[in-house]
Amino acid sequence: MQPTEPGPAGPFDASERDAVYRAIHERRDVRGQFLPDPIDPAALRRVLEAAHAAPSVGLSQPWNFILVQAPETKARVRRAFERANAEAEARFEGERRRLYSALKLQGIDEAPLNLLVTCDRSRGGPVVLGRTHQLDTDLYSTVCAVQNLWLAARAEGIGVGWVSIFHEADLREIFELPDRVVPVAYLCLGQVRELYDRPELAAKGWARQRDLDEMIFADRWGAKI
Amino acid sequence: MQPTEPGPAGPFDASERDAVYRAIHERRDVRGQFLPDPIDPAALRRVLEAAHAAPSVGLSQPWNFILVQAPETKARVRRAFERANAEAEARFEGERRRLYSALKLQGIDEAPLNLLVTCDRSRGGPVVLGRTHQLDTDLYSTVCAVQNLWLAARAEGIGVGWVSIFHEADLREIFELPDRVVPVAYLCLGQVRELYDRPELAAKGWARQRDLDEMIFADRWGAKI
Repeated sequence: MQPTEPGPAGPFDASERDAVYRAIHERRDVRGQFLPDPIDPAALRRVLEAAHAAPSVGLSQPWNFILVQAPETKARVRRAFERANAEAEARFEGERRRLYSALKLQGIDEAPLNLLVTCDRSRGGPVVLGRTHQLDTDLYSTVCAVQNLWLAARAEGIGVGWVSIFHEADLREIFELPDRVVPVAYLCLGQVRELYDRPELAAKGWARQRDLDEMIFADRWGAKI
Repeated sequence: MQPTEPGPAGPFDASERDAVYRAIHERRDVRGQFLPDPIDPAALRRVLEAAHAAPSVGLSQPWNFILVQAPETKARVRRAFERANAEAEARFEGERRRLYSALKLQGIDEAPLNLLVTCDRSRGGPVVLGRTHQLDTDLYSTVCAVQNLWLAARAEGIGVGWVSIFHEADLREIFELPDRVVPVAYLCLGQVRELYDRPELAAKGWARQRDLDEMIFADRWGAKI
């Protein structure tokens, strides 16, 4: 194989940089507001190429993308969500349960496209460079692909919501996943009418956003800058 | 895509969209090419704010960022890497081992800033919305923060490398992590002279990049579009 030489590595110009930050800061986890309009196939291809350009441990690229459009499949997924969500709701009490029940947590039916992102834990063979000591780095690579997809989707005007309230066994059965393949992210995609200007769970009073300064330490846990 | 009513949730204009894709496609996992120049504090702040703007399960924001600059700390981390990497090398044989040994897999000393991104598994309390059925979604949120950071860094002209060849216990000890806190990503950051135009492991013949079309299924595992 012909070696490739490194190329330019400097900062983007200000307008390019601002566009990257715009995608990062405007991205939302969308549960409602989906429009029924189909997603443009060229935009979807670019979004999937963005996911596929994610970093992966040992260049193993362990992800797959299962596009979910069949109404009967979406209906099975929604029923699996409803079963799990009833259990989830029961874990909150009093006022929290009332608020939980009022939150919309998925747009499975309304979003014109759903997408299951999986991780094939055998991808790259029995010994993967970089995965020798942290076995879950393949799952982490798959999440990097999800985040790339999410930001690219924002730039394309496509909203994305990540639905995580499922029993893994239900997703395995619905999508006929082999044992070696793990469902990582079930996503709902579609054009959206509007986006919240801050996380929906903050806007609706479920949780507060923490200050970045609380999160930063110097050289060891707990040592403030 | 031609949305009928372009609004605040609509697509970016073409130049903004291209900038987002530029960051996604030019981002590299940097092991060499680090320059010793310090990172501009304002750029570092923007990059950390980008990480902190990541999606998180139940808005739990489970990440912390430990900035690593003390030379003695970096030296301890490098020794932990070297111990683990000797074990990793022994898991490859023949020509693969020779190639593995020739690869540069970390820039701990050369990069002016190292950064440990952690996940506090107790953040958000005993029951977190969205984490009731998939317990690892807090780790996934933390990885979303890492990928945001990585893309923002590219826009700022800062290269990032993710070093995963460590025993977790070594990182726990060096950074005095409480039991509830998991080290997710150890990153090396710095301005870089140059970037490869494709993944370094592909450029150096370690692994091949797979085609996106291999990765896409329709409605169930293995069903081609």
